Amino acid sequence: MTRNALIRASSDLFRRFHSVAKEILAKPQPAESVTHRCDLLGKITETPGETTRTYGSDAMRYANTLVGEWMRAAGMTTRADAIGNLIGHYAGAKPNARILLLGSHLDTVRNAGKFDGPLGVLLAIACVDELNRQKIRLPFAIEVVGFADEEGVRYQTACLGSKVFAGCFEESDLRRKDANGVALADAIRRFGGNPAQLKSARLNPKTILGYVEAHIEQGPVLEENHLALGTVTAIAGQTRARLTFIGCAGHAGTTPMSSRKDALCAAAEFILAVEKLAGRTRGLVATVGEAAARPGASNVIPGEVRLSLDLRHARDSVRKSARRTLEKIAGRIARRRRMQLEVEVVHETPAVKCSAALSKLLDAAVRRRQKKTVRLASGAGHDAAVMAGITPAAMLFIRCKNGLSHHPDESVKPADVQMALAVMNDFLQSLAKKYRQIKP
Amino acid sequence: MTRNALIRASSDLFRRFHSVAKEILAKPQPAESVTHRCDLLGKITETPGETTRTYGSDAMRYANTLVGEWMRAAGMTTRADAIGNLIGHYAGAKPNARILLLGSHLDTVRNAGKFDGPLGVLLAIACVDELNRQKIRLPFAIEVVGFADEEGVRYQTACLGSKVFAGCFEESDLRRKDANGVALADAIRRFGGNPAQLKSARLNPKTILGYVEAHIEQGPVLEENHLALGTVTAIAGQTRARLTFIGCAGHAGTTPMSSRKDALCAAAEFILAVEKLAGRTRGLVATVGEAAARPGASNVIPGEVRLSLDLRHARDSVRKSARRTLEKIAGRIARRRRMQLEVEVVHETPAVKCSAALSKLLDAAVRRRQKKTVRLASGAGHDAAVMAGITPAAMLFIRCKNGLSHHPDESVKPADVQMALAVMNDFLQSLAKKYRQIKP
Repeated sequence: MTRNALIRASSDLFRRFHSVAKEILAKPQPAESVTHRCDLLGKITETPGETTRTYGSDAMRYANTLVGEWMRAAGMTTRADAIGNLIGHYAGAKPNARILLLGSHLDTVRNAGKFDGPLGVLLAIACVDELNRQKIRLPFAIEVVGFADEEGVRYQTACLGSKVFAGCFEESDLRRKDANGVALADAIRRFGGNPAQLKSARLNPKTILGYVEAHIEQGPVLEENHLALGTVTAIAGQTRARLTFIGCAGHAGTTPMSSRKDALCAAAEFILAVEKLAGRTRGLVATVGEAAARPGASNVIPGEVRLSLDLRHARDSVRKSARRTLEKIAGRIARRRRMQLEVEVVHETPAVKCSAALSKLLDAAVRRRQKKTVRLASGAGHDAAVMAGITPAAMLFIRCKNGLSHHPDESVKPADVQMALAVMNDFLQSLAKKYRQIKP
Repeated sequence: MTRNALIRASSDLFRRFHSVAKEILAKPQPAESVTHRCDLLGKITETPGETTRTYGSDAMRYANTLVGEWMRAAGMTTRADAIGNLIGHYAGAKPNARILLLGSHLDTVRNAGKFDGPLGVLLAIACVDELNRQKIRLPFAIEVVGFADEEGVRYQTACLGSKVFAGCFEESDLRRKDANGVALADAIRRFGGNPAQLKSARLNPKTILGYVEAHIEQGPVLEENHLALGTVTAIAGQTRARLTFIGCAGHAGTTPMSSRKDALCAAAEFILAVEKLAGRTRGLVATVGEAAARPGASNVIPGEVRLSLDLRHARDSVRKSARRTLEKIAGRIARRRRMQLEVEVVHETPAVKCSAALSKLLDAAVRRRQKKTVRLASGAGHDAAVMAGITPAAMLFIRCKNGLSHHPDESVKPADVQMALAVMNDFLQSLAKKYRQIKP
C-alpha cells in the first residue's frame, strides 16, 4: 500500500484518520496478521474513542479504501457495486470460471467491537493472499466481499449490502431517512453508488458456486465447549412482535389493590411466561428486551405497557408454535385481569439452512485441526442467510470471549483466528478437489 | 366583583383570561354555586385547552386574584403570605379569638381536573358566605386558605404552601430550579412573595384551633359504598424506593436461555411479588409505577432494570414491615438469578392521624345527612398531613366519579357538593357549641 494511494483516497479523510494511516504506513503488516488488521480497522470510526461505522459514513468510505488496498495487495482486482459493497476478484484457473464468494460486512453497530464483520472479510483476504503468494489458481474464481451494510444501524434495516447481491433489496427502503433526515437514496449517491442500478447489481446465481462467511459466534457455546471453531447448521428464523397490555392508570395511593388494572403486573406475568417457555423448549431463545410502562410515574398505576418479543429457533415450526402459545398465554393474562391486549407481529424471517455440501467440507476441515467438532445454529442474522436465497451458503463460527459481541470488549484469540485461516485454506483446497472431480 | 378589580389585577393577565373574566362578570354567581366556581377556576390555566396551574404561574396569580375577590364578597379580609398562600379572614365574635383554618390548595397537576384542591377552598368560602349572610360570628375566627402549592409539579416537591404555614419549609428547596432554570426563590419573588420571610410566616400554633380540609376522595371507596361523603381517619404514610436489578446484557439471538442474567425477568418476579403482598395485606397499597429496561432494544437481553416502588398504609408498622419483606424478596430473586441488586429509599413520610375530636364532630355532621358513615384512610398526601404537625387536622372526603383524579375527566356530583356544604356548616355550628362549653 503506497502513501500516494492513501492520499488519493481523500485528503479530507486522510487528515481525519491520519494517525491510523501513519501506523499502517509505518509498519506494513504481513497478510496473515488478520487480528492486527482488525485492530487497525477498529480505529476507523465516525465517533472518536469508539468503533462506529454506519453505512455511507466517511469512516465506511475510508474502510473500503483501506480494505481495497489490502485486496489489491493480495492479488485481487477491486470494484464497488451500486450500493458500495467492496468486491475483490481473484481469477480462477480458466477465464469465466464460476465464482466462490467469501466475505462478511465492514459496517458496525454503534460502539462496536473490532471483529463482528471485519474478521470474516480479512480472513477471506488472507486466504486469497496465501493462494496468490503460492501462485495457485483454483478451478473457480474467488470474490471477497465486504458488505457495506449488514447491521442496518443508520436506516433501521438489516443486510442492505447482501440484499443487493441477492436481488431482494426493497425499493421502498430508498425513501427511509436517517436521524438527520438524509434519505437512503441520497446516502447511496454520496457513498459513490447508484440507487437506479441496485436491481441490475443482482448477481447471476448461475455464475456463483456458493458463499462462505467466517464470523465470530456472538454466543457462548464454543467457549463453553472449549473449542475454537464450529460450523453453522442453520441461521435461526426470527419473530419480532410488539405486545401492548392496556389496563387503567390510577392513583397509586387511593386505588385499592382489588380495583386495579395494572398493566405492568400483566406484563410481568407475560415476561415470566416467555422465559419459562423458552427454558423448556430446546434451542428456542425468547427475549423481552423493551418494556415501556405508561404514564411511567412512581405514584401512578401503569395503565399501559408495551413489550417487545423476540423469538428465534433453527426450525420454523418450533418458533411458530412458540409464538402461538405465547399469544394464547398473553390473551389469558389480559382476560383474567380484564384488560385489552394488542399484538402486532413486526417482522418475521424464516430459518435458513446452510448448504449441507459446503458445510460438510468445512466440517471436515475443522475436524482435521480440532479434536471435536460442533455444529450449531446461529441465533443472530447474517449476510449468509440472505445469500442462501440465491446460492449455497455456509458459515464458520469463531469462538469469542464470553460470547460477547456488539461491545468494545468483543475479543477473539489470535490462535483461533490462525486456526480459522488454516481451516478456510484447507476448505478451499477440498472444494477445488471436489470441483475438479465433478467438472474435470 | 367589579370590572375594575379584575382590570387592576393585571391588564396582561386580563387579556389572557378575557373570556373567563367576561363570563364571571356577565353572570355573577350566588356563593353557594361552588361547582360553578370550580368550572370557572378550571378555565384559568397556563396551558390552553387544559387545566394546568403550577406554582407562581400567571394562571395561579389570576386564580388568587379571583378567589380573593370571592373571599371579600363573602365578608373576609384577604392577604397573601410570604410564599403566596391566599388567606381570607372572617373575624370571630371577640377580637383575638383563636382561628379555625379551612381550605385546600389552588394549584393543580398538569392537565388536571377541576376539583382536586379548588373544591375545598370554594366550599370553605361558601361556608363563610353563609355565616356572613346570616350575620353570624362564631366564638372563633375562620381563616380560609388557598395554598399556593400542594401538587409540587413545577419544583418536584409537595405541599410547599402548607409547609410555610407549619414552619417546616426546607430552605434548601429555594435553590431548586424548574424546567426553565428558574430557581424557586426567584419564582417566589415574581409571585409577590418573599423568600426571606418564609420562616417568620410560620403560624403560631397557639392561635390556631385546628385545620379542616374538604377534598375529593381520589379513590373508589365512597362510590363503591354509594355514599357521598366520608371522614378521614389518617393520611397514609408512604415509602418511595428505587430498586435496580443488574444482570448482564447480551445478544437475544445467540445467548442460550441457561446462560442469561435477564434483569427484566428478575424485575417481573419482583413486580408480581409486590402485587401479591399488597393483595393479602389489608389496607396496604403497593405500586411499581416506573420500569426502565436497559439497554432497551428488542434484540438485546435487558442487563439492568430500574423500578420505582410506592408503599402506603395508614399504619407505619404495616408499611415498614411490607418494605422489609419486599426487600428480602428482591434480595432472594437477585441471589437466585446471580444478579446484583441496589435498593435506595428515596422518600419516607410517616402516617398522620387525623384529630379524633374534630373528626368525631365531622362524623356526627355526616351522620345527620347520610344514612351510613364511612371512615377511610387517605392514600394520597394532603395539606392536612402537613398541618397536623402543628394543629389538630381533619378531612372530609367527597365522592368522585370512578375514583378518578389528576385527569380532565375528574367529576363530582353537584348534589354531593351541596351535602358537603351542609355538613361543613353543621360542623362549624357543633364546633362553636363545643367551644362555648369549654371556653364560656
